[in-house]
Amino acid sequence: MSDQPNVSRLYLALVHYPVKDRAGATVTTSVTNLDVHDIARSARTFGVSRYYVVTPIELQHTLVRRILDHWTTGAGRKRMPERWEALSLVEPLVSLEQAIADATQREGERPRLMVTAARAPEGRTLTTVAEAQGWLRDRQHPYMLVLGTGHGLAESVLASADHQLEPLDSGTGYNHLSVRAAAAIYLDRLLGR
Amino acid sequence: MSDQPNVSRLYLALVHYPVKDRAGATVTTSVTNLDVHDIARSARTFGVSRYYVVTPIELQHTLVRRILDHWTTGAGRKRMPERWEALSLVEPLVSLEQAIADATQREGERPRLMVTAARAPEGRTLTTVAEAQGWLRDRQHPYMLVLGTGHGLAESVLASADHQLEPLDSGTGYNHLSVRAAAAIYLDRLLGR
Repeated sequence: MSDQPNVSRLYLALVHYPVKDRAGATVTTSVTNLDVHDIARSARTFGVSRYYVVTPIELQHTLVRRILDHWTTGAGRKRMPERWEALSLVEPLVSLEQAIADATQREGERPRLMVTAARAPEGRTLTTVAEAQGWLRDRQHPYMLVLGTGHGLAESVLASADHQLEPLDSGTGYNHLSVRAAAAIYLDRLLGR
Repeated sequence: MSDQPNVSRLYLALVHYPVKDRAGATVTTSVTNLDVHDIARSARTFGVSRYYVVTPIELQHTLVRRILDHWTTGAGRKRMPERWEALSLVEPLVSLEQAIADATQREGERPRLMVTAARAPEGRTLTTVAEAQGWLRDRQHPYMLVLGTGHGLAESVLASADHQLEPLDSGTGYNHLSVRAAAAIYLDRLLGR
């Protein structure tokens, strides 16, 4: 595990499969350039250990690696070193299992999965942000925050997680944040200040 | 003013001029599709009254209006009504003064400007998030949260504001959030829960 005080034991996974589409069917979404950049910058700002971009489509790993290469070597790195610092956290992997395996190797312990969803499922105990904050501050165990693209993580992922975080409640009854905004808010709530 | 309990008296302005470039020079940045969408969704989620996209380049107003037309009438509106709900908050205007004038007309009172910057300037009294939260909860006066694109708002905008919010402090010493992530976090801190 990292002994740097500014680095949490929190890992982040952005899942492109299995996620839901608008109708609830399980689909694979495309990796977007901006999800890589924006969420890497938020991850670095709040001290996330590693940011996994999860997709089974190997061609999209090539896309991610091309972005990383541009910014982590050569011209991009020289021109904007702070972007390199953020993107060096990024790792494209084919499955959530691989992300868990990578974090397990780094930590010597399997990270506990915290999933998120825009709506609370019936009959499931939810973890409050305050509880999760406490666990992260204790640094006793590594955790992985799992975010879904599309219309959210498939039920199979939600069901297999150790913890489901309470949805981001804004009080307006409207909750259609972009995954970039949701990632920023969760990281701020969990690790900010 | 709005009497809807779920709508704050907070207005949001995303400024594309005058902002700083990497070297500190004053420039005009381009409006991006995703800034319009992401920030509108965050604005709607947290109950912002109106989201002004400020740029003196009239051609870019056409771009913004084309996005709005697609989602607020016809096919887009039917397919994704929640996107329409968010984008109906958006208004492209040529200057911050026009945004202030529009909000003043809606509220019957000039909104107080709260600016943001990634770094605290020397010798300026900063407003804490807790203070600003209190003002917004009281609903005694309208406020406008002003965010800069590029490398942040020009000094002239910072100097003319009523309040400058404390920078988002993550505790890591790294603060290079995207404007989309910063908007989401500020709205959550100011209006969330």
